[in-house]
Parts: sequence; C-alpha cells; structure tokens
Amino acid sequence: MAESEEREDEGLNERLVQDILDAVDQAEGSRLTQLLEPLHPADIADLLEQISPEERHALLTLWQGLDGEVLSEIREGIREEVIDTMAPEVLADAVRELDTDDVVDIVQDLELPQQEIILGALNRADRAAVEKALTYPEYSAGRLMQREAVVAPEHWTVGEAIDFLREAEYLPDQFYHVILVDPRMKPLSYVTLGRVLSSRRDGQLRDLAEDSFRTFHPADPESDVAYQFNQYHLISAPVVDDDGRLVGVITIDDAMNVLDEEHEEDILRLAGVGDDSSISDGVVETLRQRTPWLLVNLGTANISAWVISQFEGTIAIIVALAALMPIIASMGGNAGTQSLTVAVRALATRDLTSSNAARVVRREVAVGLVNGLFFAVVMGALGVTLYGGTVMLGVVIALAMIINLAVAALAGVIVPLTLQKLRLDPALASGTFVMTLTDVVGFFSFLGLATVMLL
Amino acid sequence: MAESEEREDEGLNERLVQDILDAVDQAEGSRLTQLLEPLHPADIADLLEQISPEERHALLTLWQGLDGEVLSEIREGIREEVIDTMAPEVLADAVRELDTDDVVDIVQDLELPQQEIILGALNRADRAAVEKALTYPEYSAGRLMQREAVVAPEHWTVGEAIDFLREAEYLPDQFYHVILVDPRMKPLSYVTLGRVLSSRRDGQLRDLAEDSFRTFHPADPESDVAYQFNQYHLISAPVVDDDGRLVGVITIDDAMNVLDEEHEEDILRLAGVGDDSSISDGVVETLRQRTPWLLVNLGTANISAWVISQFEGTIAIIVALAALMPIIASMGGNAGTQSLTVAVRALATRDLTSSNAARVVRREVAVGLVNGLFFAVVMGALGVTLYGGTVMLGVVIALAMIINLAVAALAGVIVPLTLQKLRLDPALASGTFVMTLTDVVGFFSFLGLATVMLL
Repeated sequence: MAESEEREDEGLNERLVQDILDAVDQAEGSRLTQLLEPLHPADIADLLEQISPEERHALLTLWQGLDGEVLSEIREGIREEVIDTMAPEVLADAVRELDTDDVVDIVQDLELPQQEIILGALNRADRAAVEKALTYPEYSAGRLMQREAVVAPEHWTVGEAIDFLREAEYLPDQFYHVILVDPRMKPLSYVTLGRVLSSRRDGQLRDLAEDSFRTFHPADPESDVAYQFNQYHLISAPVVDDDGRLVGVITIDDAMNVLDEEHEEDILRLAGVGDDSSISDGVVETLRQRTPWLLVNLGTANISAWVISQFEGTIAIIVALAALMPIIASMGGNAGTQSLTVAVRALATRDLTSSNAARVVRREVAVGLVNGLFFAVVMGALGVTLYGGTVMLGVVIALAMIINLAVAALAGVIVPLTLQKLRLDPALASGTFVMTLTDVVGFFSFLGLATVMLL
Repeated sequence: MAESEEREDEGLNERLVQDILDAVDQAEGSRLTQLLEPLHPADIADLLEQISPEERHALLTLWQGLDGEVLSEIREGIREEVIDTMAPEVLADAVRELDTDDVVDIVQDLELPQQEIILGALNRADRAAVEKALTYPEYSAGRLMQREAVVAPEHWTVGEAIDFLREAEYLPDQFYHVILVDPRMKPLSYVTLGRVLSSRRDGQLRDLAEDSFRTFHPADPESDVAYQFNQYHLISAPVVDDDGRLVGVITIDDAMNVLDEEHEEDILRLAGVGDDSSISDGVVETLRQRTPWLLVNLGTANISAWVISQFEGTIAIIVALAALMPIIASMGGNAGTQSLTVAVRALATRDLTSSNAARVVRREVAVGLVNGLFFAVVMGALGVTLYGGTVMLGVVIALAMIINLAVAALAGVIVPLTLQKLRLDPALASGTFVMTLTDVVGFFSFLGLATVMLL
C-alpha cells in the first residue's frame, strides 16, 4: 500500500497541479523547475493539456526546460501552440535527442515554417530519414517506424553479436531483438535479446531465431500494424521495402499508441463527434467538432417530424398516440445502438468477418424478434392498463414494437457491414443512420397502424 | 506489396476458413491438421470463435492438437465449451507449457471440476503460484503477473549476470529486463537487456540501471496497471508485496490486453449493452446481455411519455406540436451523447481531472448555449416557414432548443463526473440517464412553453 502512495507522489495530482500553478502565478522560476523536474514527460504533457491556454503560456514563458519527450507526448492541437512559445534553439535541442519516428510524429502535423526549424536542427542522416518517412502516406507503417535498427549477419555467433553491440557507437533507446539479415540487408528472422544473453558465446544466432517472424511494408496502414502487434503479441517488427530490404523497425509502444487512437476514433465517431475532439479543446474547436453532426441530426429529425406530420389527422382524434409514439422510437433507437456497437467493435477487432456475417445477421434478427415479442406484450399491456387505451390500441403498440425492434437489430449489423464493404469506416455516421431509420420506422409503423386499425 | 500477400496467406481468410470447414465436414483429420498447423494460436482461437457451435464441436472432436496458447487466446465464454471437449490428458499437456499468468487467466473463469483438472496437471511450484494468484482480487495486478522473474544482486557485474543467465535452468518465455534486488529480494531498479548486451563484462549493473522505475502491488487494480504501462511506455514492471519483496512481473502484452478490454467495456457500456457481449454469443446469451438494458429504457421512455401525456390538452389544440416535439428531444439527446462520450473517454485516459473539471464544465455550458442559439434560430425559422407555424410557435421552438441543448451539454459532463466521484464506472448507465434527462427536459420545456405562450 505504501507503494501506491509513493506512486501517487510521482504522478500528477490536484495539489501538485495547484502548487505548479501557484509557482507560475508568482513567477517563481526555480520553484517551478523543482516541481516539474521529477515528473515523467508524459505527466508534464498531461499537465500542459489540462491547464488553461493562459496558464500554459505563462508556464512555458517561465520554464524553458521543455524537452523532446514532452513535445512528443503532447497532443497535436496543443503541440503547435507549445512550439510557438519555444525559442528556436531550445526547440532544436529538444528534437535532436529524439528517435526519428518521434520526430516524424511531431513534424507531420506542423506548418511549413515550424517544420523547417525542426528539420534544420537535425543532423544530415536524421533529416534524410525524417524526410523519407514523410514521403509515405499518413497513418502508414512508414511514418510509424524508426530508422534505427539493430542487425547482424545471419552467420554470426552470439559472441560476435555481443562484441558488435559493445563496440556500437549508436544504439536505439529501446530495442528488443537482433534482426538477422542477409548480405543484401534482407531480414531473415530475429533473435530476442533474452536468448542472446542466455546462450553461449559460440552459439549460432540462426539457431536461436524465433519461429514466427512478421515484417511490414512502409505503405501498410498503421491500423493493420496495431492489429497484428496486438493479435500476435509482437514486441518489435522490421519494415522492409519493395525489394525486401530492411528500412526500419516498429516497436510495441508505437503500436499501442495507434491502438489507443483507433479506439478513440471509434468511440467518438459512434457518438457523432469529430474524431479530433479532446477535453482540452476550447469552445470554438469544440463547436467545430460537434455542430456539423448536430446539423445532420437536425436534418434527420426533420424527416421524422415530417413522417409524424402526415398523421396529424389521426393524432387529432386520438391524442394519446402523441405520448406513446416516442416510446416505440426510443426502444428502436436503443436496440439499434446495442446491435450496432457490438458489430462495429467486432469489425474493429476483426471478429466479424465474411465467414460469420450471415450467422450474426440471423442471430440479430432472432434477438430482435424475441425482444420485439417480449416488449410488445409488456408495452401493449401497459397501453391498455396504464394509459387506459382500448385493446386495439394495445395491439397497435405491440405490432409497432415488434416491427421496430426487428428492424433495429437488423439495421444495427447491416449498416456497418455495408459501410465496411464500401471501404468506409463502419463507425462513421452509422449511428445517425440507424437512429434515423428506427425513428422513421417507429413513427410510421405506429401511427400508420393506428390510422388503419383504430379510426 | 508481396509482403502483404504473404501475410494474407499466413492469417485467416475466407477461403481458408471454408477449406477448414470442408475438411471438418468430410472428417479428413490429417488435411485439417495440415491446414491448422501453420496458423498462429491467436488465429486458431479467432477461427473457433467465428464458426458455429456445431462446427466447433466437430472440429475439436476431429483435431486433438489444440495447445495451451490457443486455450489462453480464446474468449471466456467459448473456452469452457472447448475445455469440455478436450480429453483430460490433452488438457493437462496443453496447460503445462504455459506461463503461470496465462494459467491463472484460464483457471479463474472455470467451474471447480475443470479447475481441478488443470491445477492437477501442474507441477507443485506452478500449482502453488497459481493458487497464490487466485487469492488476489479479480482484475488485480496479482492475477495479471507472472511469477517467473529474472533477477540479479545489485552488486553484480554485466559478466556475472550473463554467466548466470547462461547457466539458468529455467527462464521465462519473454523477458526484457534484469531486475536488481537487495539480499531481501527487494527490487531496487532494473537494467534493459539492450544495455546489458552492449556493455563491457566488467561494467557494474547498477551503473546501467534505468532512471525511472515503477513497481506495482498485487492488489493494484489492473486498470491502473494498464494505464501506467500506456502512460509511461513500460515494457515490464516488478510486482512487490507489502514488505517490498518481489513476487512477480507484469509484461506489456498483458497490459495491452487489459487496455483493450477496458476500451471494450467502455464502448459497450456507453451503448447500454452488457460488457461481456460478443459477436460469437448465441441468441440466449445476447438476450441476457441486452434485454435488461432495454427494460430500463422502457421505464425511462414511459417517464417521457407521462410528461407528454400531461400536455395532451395542448396537443389536441395545436396538433403540429406532436410532430415538432421529437426534434427538440432528439437534438438534446445527440448533444448530450457528444458531451458525455468526450467526458467518459477523458476520464478513462485521466485527461479529465479535478484540476480541469471546472473549466470543462464552463466550456460545455458555453458550447451548449452557442449551439442552442444557433439551432434555435434555424429551427425557429423552419417552424414558421416549413411547418407553417406562427411566429410565437417559432419562439417556443427556439427557447426550448436553447434550454435543452444547454442542459444536454451540462448533463453530459456532470453525470459522468458525479459517477466517478461516487466511485462508479462513468460509462455505466450514464447514457440512459442523460438521454432520459434530455427527453424529459425537451418535451417538458417545449410543451410547457407552448401551453403558456400559445394557448
């Protein structure tokens, strides 16, 4: 338990944030440095994201110790703002200490003048590597990889590899494998460092190689990379060009980051929010992320309203319908969201494929019908008792409920499957589509049946 | 590009699944083995999840090569079914090859008789380790860790460590650090294998130790572990008991798995689906995951209906209100979902804290008001033109829109913050709560204002 307290102290907490803001407020530079120094760069980045733009500006003016790690941890929107407050030479120092993949990550979102400052700070080889990476498509393995790789000829012994590593002038910050290559730099397999360390000096590296070996191409989408790292428990993987030559390495921390971003994108898109939304956005940016989606919703809501308006004659005669109709629509919306979310998630994890799509669709129809029947009976009975309707009104409610829950369950899986087939993101706009459908079907079936059966 | 084709062949694809099912259908055991052999255990697990229960049973009866890795990859619901089809000695062989953390993961969800078969298959030390792990709470670091750790006394040199590793009889499948311990087995720091390998034999391990060093306690929640691995880019971390003694190690693949599960839980809970939902569930299990939530929704929908029913007199006079009122409710529901999702996600990533909660709430109110004003003008104008209402009806629509969008934005952030304060999951039920609120406020403000201003 002592441990958790200790960790609490190490990370960010409310008191520490307050102390830091106090130091900023009173312009106590050395006290500020003293408070920030022990923090992990990721925590400093979080701090910068959590405080207000004014506080951020004041803090960065007072504290010039911001290093490359913090810069690479901080989220895009705020990073540009942070870079603007940094003196060019401080910025140059900060980026020089980073691996090339982190520099790429920073540079790719910047405007040209800021890009130039950072590229200018790098040595020639690093600059070339970053510029090469920027020629690959956005969100590709080529942007994700680091150029720095630890390789050994296939015929080396453990001893030769160790001697080479001891002599090496430059090694990446983190590496987990020695990649075995042929004379043309084509990766053949890899050996974990654990196996190198636990084997005798005269052991052949090729005898220690892992059975399974996966490589990526620079043009592979990063979502594919993240999926394979997660699926196959990879720690690092080589990237090879069209000729099969090694051009870089992707490590698990970058893959984990992509996986996290993909999740974020899915959850935000399902909610009808721009996928760059962040808790640290200001009012204007938040409006930019949300208002377009609300505008779409206004359009679809007006379609539902138009459907209802076609039955105003019926409602004028049986006013109770006005109170009951949103129940049918709401139940459909909920059932559709349930089915949709499970399907979108399964598509993301590749658990929903063409092999089982037909069975999943059949299951959804069955679930929709069973739920439809159950809620038809419950709500039909409530319509007669609680709302004092006729038995025929109860039947209308029941039928509309069955229709809408079946449509909802079916649409929830068909819509994302169709989007996927069209090579669109299944999470994008499918929520709006399913909700509109269940609203329209709900109102139309309920009011339509009422018009036919009750008047 | 050749690379991606190659990988395509390695993984699952529709044709391969079809070939496998054909082999099962024709009871061609050796052909089946030949098709399954080259697949990664994770892909075999996916295959078993994607096919129907009947196909699964037939496949497992025909193929007895299922190993421990597949067992540990497969999801809970199906794992029990799979274990039931395995001969006890095959099962025993399968689990014996696993690390203890994977055995714990399998055993913890099983019924007692199945547990006993697996525990009985382990050697004494492994069995004790698994039984010890099971004494820790579910979803804790203690269940996640593996007992196997690579340690060295702090005063050792690189050479001594290498010699020790070369002599070691047993080493974990994967390890990335040598943990430095004092004579009481208290971890002091750790050295990455890369640093060990690249340093001279006479170098002191303690001089190579990493600056930052984080340990966990067996009782720490696994969500905390996953957060820290992601935040601080950890690859592995020691777990220590109350006395500070080393009891195990957690590695990144397990942490990544937990992160993935947490995401899944959030997205499913936000959608009002049981968080064990899976695309491979049958009809009965799917109903069990969804129907309770629909029942809750039926309750809340009836509250909205009751609100509307209080204004039946008003609707009877101005029937157009019935068509317009769902627009106000729907816009509120959407705006609330937007604000809620961003807040829930930010709470999960710990970007929304008590340090910035007040500013986020202020931002949401501002966003709600601006959107409210904008859509008030748009929809008010539509009410007069498209729906042929009076100017006063336009004013009623506009006012109700402002009220509901402001309430929606505010509730979207206040509800999850409150749940968090009460130590409940912010994702759980907050969607239902926010939607109910925006429905009730939407209908009440619109119909109430209409009653006061239009009659």
